[in-house]
Amino acid sequence: MSTELYDLTVPVFLRGFKAMSAFLEKARTWADENGIPHAELLEARLADDMAPLSSQIQRVSDGAKFALARLGQLEAPAMADTETSFDELQARIAATVAFLKSVPREAVDGREDADIEVKTPNRSFHFKGLPYVTTFALPNFYFHITTAYAILRHKGAPLGKMDFLGGI
Amino acid sequence: MSTELYDLTVPVFLRGFKAMSAFLEKARTWADENGIPHAELLEARLADDMAPLSSQIQRVSDGAKFALARLGQLEAPAMADTETSFDELQARIAATVAFLKSVPREAVDGREDADIEVKTPNRSFHFKGLPYVTTFALPNFYFHITTAYAILRHKGAPLGKMDFLGGI
Repeated sequence: MSTELYDLTVPVFLRGFKAMSAFLEKARTWADENGIPHAELLEARLADDMAPLSSQIQRVSDGAKFALARLGQLEAPAMADTETSFDELQARIAATVAFLKSVPREAVDGREDADIEVKTPNRSFHFKGLPYVTTFALPNFYFHITTAYAILRHKGAPLGKMDFLGGI
Repeated sequence: MSTELYDLTVPVFLRGFKAMSAFLEKARTWADENGIPHAELLEARLADDMAPLSSQIQRVSDGAKFALARLGQLEAPAMADTETSFDELQARIAATVAFLKSVPREAVDGREDADIEVKTPNRSFHFKGLPYVTTFALPNFYFHITTAYAILRHKGAPLGKMDFLGGI
């Protein structure tokens, strides 16, 4: 018994987006009920040189989208990082989810040893497919979801661990 | 090609502990250089009803330890949650790492469909082995490492994303 690469990525990411979408909606409702401007949450950050809530959500989206594009040798849909409202961020999540759902299992399974390149402005990182997922894509994905959650908790939003986990 | 359950757990957790141990040490050094009392970091939290740094590290330890105990049907070493210093927290990490390293691959591989029970004071949760890892153990593990990192960043410690990832 063992696990295919698709099952370690697409359904795991979909589950994370479902939880994040729900806790963002909960935070928006709480903000509206308490007269808190949305921008006060969306622009909040935990340190001056950390990214604000809106960027954390963009990074969750990018992380999942590019992971499947690289693993499946697919074109990821372009997203301009211009979201400034809860509605726009929810649309970003929905677009990312739609892309993930379009990824065929055949494109991902068996790519454990594939060469994966992650290009950044300053340098490139090279991975094999499985360590790319376990040491980069998944930790990054949870890093940005957790940071989004932590920003909202820091601002007082009434969220709990089950909101992060998306129910168990 | 596919992945065994051991490879989704033990080496992934060991990598996380190595990164967390290193960024805790970096934060301690920074605190000492800047005359910041250790307790100011160890007792820091992002919200009044969130756990402080020391507890976040205890939860990372528990999460990994109990995950392997449950999956491998092993006895997890008892740990009393009494750590109040960086040295004690590093010792806790070391003890957890030693337990993880003692887990035989044979105890874990093939347990994807095993019944796993997580008991809390209020209720019990039931999982199969693989979803226990992908929807509970790993998200929780990264949740608490990220929150520990976020607390230190919020307090001003000079850490960056690579400290969280443990290098790539």
